[in-house]
Amino acid sequence: MKIIIAPDSFKGSLTAIEAAQAMNKGIKKAFSDAETVLLPVADGGEGSMETLVSATNGKIEHVQVVGPLGSKVEAAYGILGDSETCVIEMATASGLNLVPDEQLSPLRATTYGTGQLIKQALDDGFSSFIIGIGGSATNDGGAGMLQALGLQILDKNGNEIGYGGCELSKINQIDMRSFDKRIKDCNFIIASDVQNPLIGANGASAIFGPQKGATAEDVALLDGNLTHWADEVAEITDIKLHDLPGAGAAGGIGGAFQAFFPFVMKRGIDVVLDYIKLDEKVMGADLIITGEGQVDSQTASGKTPMGVAQAAKRRDVPTIIIAGAVGKGIEVLYDFGVISANSIINSPMPLEEAIERAAELVELSAEQVVRSYFYQKINGSGRVNT
Amino acid sequence: MKIIIAPDSFKGSLTAIEAAQAMNKGIKKAFSDAETVLLPVADGGEGSMETLVSATNGKIEHVQVVGPLGSKVEAAYGILGDSETCVIEMATASGLNLVPDEQLSPLRATTYGTGQLIKQALDDGFSSFIIGIGGSATNDGGAGMLQALGLQILDKNGNEIGYGGCELSKINQIDMRSFDKRIKDCNFIIASDVQNPLIGANGASAIFGPQKGATAEDVALLDGNLTHWADEVAEITDIKLHDLPGAGAAGGIGGAFQAFFPFVMKRGIDVVLDYIKLDEKVMGADLIITGEGQVDSQTASGKTPMGVAQAAKRRDVPTIIIAGAVGKGIEVLYDFGVISANSIINSPMPLEEAIERAAELVELSAEQVVRSYFYQKINGSGRVNT
Repeated sequence: MKIIIAPDSFKGSLTAIEAAQAMNKGIKKAFSDAETVLLPVADGGEGSMETLVSATNGKIEHVQVVGPLGSKVEAAYGILGDSETCVIEMATASGLNLVPDEQLSPLRATTYGTGQLIKQALDDGFSSFIIGIGGSATNDGGAGMLQALGLQILDKNGNEIGYGGCELSKINQIDMRSFDKRIKDCNFIIASDVQNPLIGANGASAIFGPQKGATAEDVALLDGNLTHWADEVAEITDIKLHDLPGAGAAGGIGGAFQAFFPFVMKRGIDVVLDYIKLDEKVMGADLIITGEGQVDSQTASGKTPMGVAQAAKRRDVPTIIIAGAVGKGIEVLYDFGVISANSIINSPMPLEEAIERAAELVELSAEQVVRSYFYQKINGSGRVNT
Repeated sequence: MKIIIAPDSFKGSLTAIEAAQAMNKGIKKAFSDAETVLLPVADGGEGSMETLVSATNGKIEHVQVVGPLGSKVEAAYGILGDSETCVIEMATASGLNLVPDEQLSPLRATTYGTGQLIKQALDDGFSSFIIGIGGSATNDGGAGMLQALGLQILDKNGNEIGYGGCELSKINQIDMRSFDKRIKDCNFIIASDVQNPLIGANGASAIFGPQKGATAEDVALLDGNLTHWADEVAEITDIKLHDLPGAGAAGGIGGAFQAFFPFVMKRGIDVVLDYIKLDEKVMGADLIITGEGQVDSQTASGKTPMGVAQAAKRRDVPTIIIAGAVGKGIEVLYDFGVISANSIINSPMPLEEAIERAAELVELSAEQVVRSYFYQKINGSGRVNT
């Protein structure tokens, strides 16, 4: 009996690794001789860098950069176990999590620090990149990042524009001559779940601006500025970002990669699953168990359990989900190879208790569900442990 | 695929019948063509009469009797679908539930009403009885019940003693001559999970007195009085109730049946399972699902899920438990054919919400657990519904 254990983190209580270990304990209680493979995953959103690094026995390098609001922050990039692939999570340099709520300012926030991170990694010799672009505080079209990498974005007086989306209206000229020459020889996998265009009603400003602190007025201003930015970019690159799917990701930094980088854009979960080689490791398994804090109908849109189930289904391996909370609409998951979704909660309890007891509850739940699942398989030729 | 659905009630939220219906809905969602048999059960404790009556399409007869504290109460006996068997729950005539907390008085509480119920059923022509003796407010050794059936229990002046355990010390003589003659030709199945002796440290007064309102002083007095009662009973029947297992059930009424009735004493759950013919109906089933409000290590001591699992195991049918809350120590159930115990709670929530949403949660839980359980069986020759 071979079981792949591939959960995401249970937000607020267990890391993906802790969740996998708890599931493993429960499975071993049920079947002490089960072969288990612990493969903690992440959906490409925040925390994915650390999960990937630890899943591949890589390491983390810390780099001081300009934060979203201009002051210094300690960011980091990860090096995977292959020692060749550099993983950057833009949120560590330009993330919402770095800005107190009352200081949120999408007009001013810059991606400059993300560019510095990439530059440092280039200086350190890397040419293979995974860039996760979730959780940004910015709406600058990626202009800051490009400036940090040498692109000259100039106003009518020939001066570099300043930080933030509000500066984009000043652009008079973009000069690529000093843009970092190494980039064209690198490969960039952009992990993004966002298909929004750069501008318009479904654009970066309208859809994601408000959660970064933009008022209705700000949204209109930012959308106009990104339009001007896209016009200027098109002039020099011939790439029209305006309506390009994915260009609106992370305040428009998605578009910056599309216009100036050799890139491949993938769903975050697929990037992660590729690197942990789930597709290969799941072969011949009897079951894969995944999970995260909450599963519901939203899980189908690119979250970890969904990506895991899809990968497992390609190898004809069924998936069971163990989650903190199981919400409405999980039936949509059945089509993708999910057998059942099971909550860890084993009696009425407040959220705080569930968080505190999460490891124990995950263990118990895993034990019960594999006992149910494997009974039919082993009955006759053996019995579950008693 | 044949599934027997045999839950107890989920106390405070669902009757056994409602729980069975909710489980059935969940199972049909997973496998619309599953053959299901709804067999709501009860553990022989309170509520068992109604469950048995409804499971056998019987009926209920209401009878006005003397309540535990002497005032009139409306009690009831049940007639099973065979029209021959009378089911009496002593709690409907002499139960704790009939006495407000502040009026609890084990010194005064009487089983007289239970005797009246039996007498009425005898008058109505019944000779086959099931008597459930859980939940009593009494500690009178069953003296009240015997008096209602004609036994003369006399003080030194030749007068009948009054109600309650405090009167037993006055007994000078027991006269059987006017005890109801029909009883010896009847059969009585006494449903009781209690093996305690009548007197002593494990006796009726010491163990069960306090929950009926007895102080430490009351316990000493009641235990002394039951000793005197047992001495007097031994004198006339040659049966020494003092240390007899089960004589201490329900304030000593267990002993009254042992001394004066043709009786068989059985675990409550077994009585119920016999009458709903679980043993027979479970034959050829792929799975039996049972459950109740709470399962934990205590479930092994005669509660419904345990009795169901044992009966099912005799027919080699595995049992899955669905419960409101799954507590510690459920491993002890594995030896008795229980595959897994699954909570209906699917996210952190207060008890009130769990109670209000119980039907929906039971349904969802049943759907998920049968999907997990049957996947291995039907995979290859078919798939679970999507």
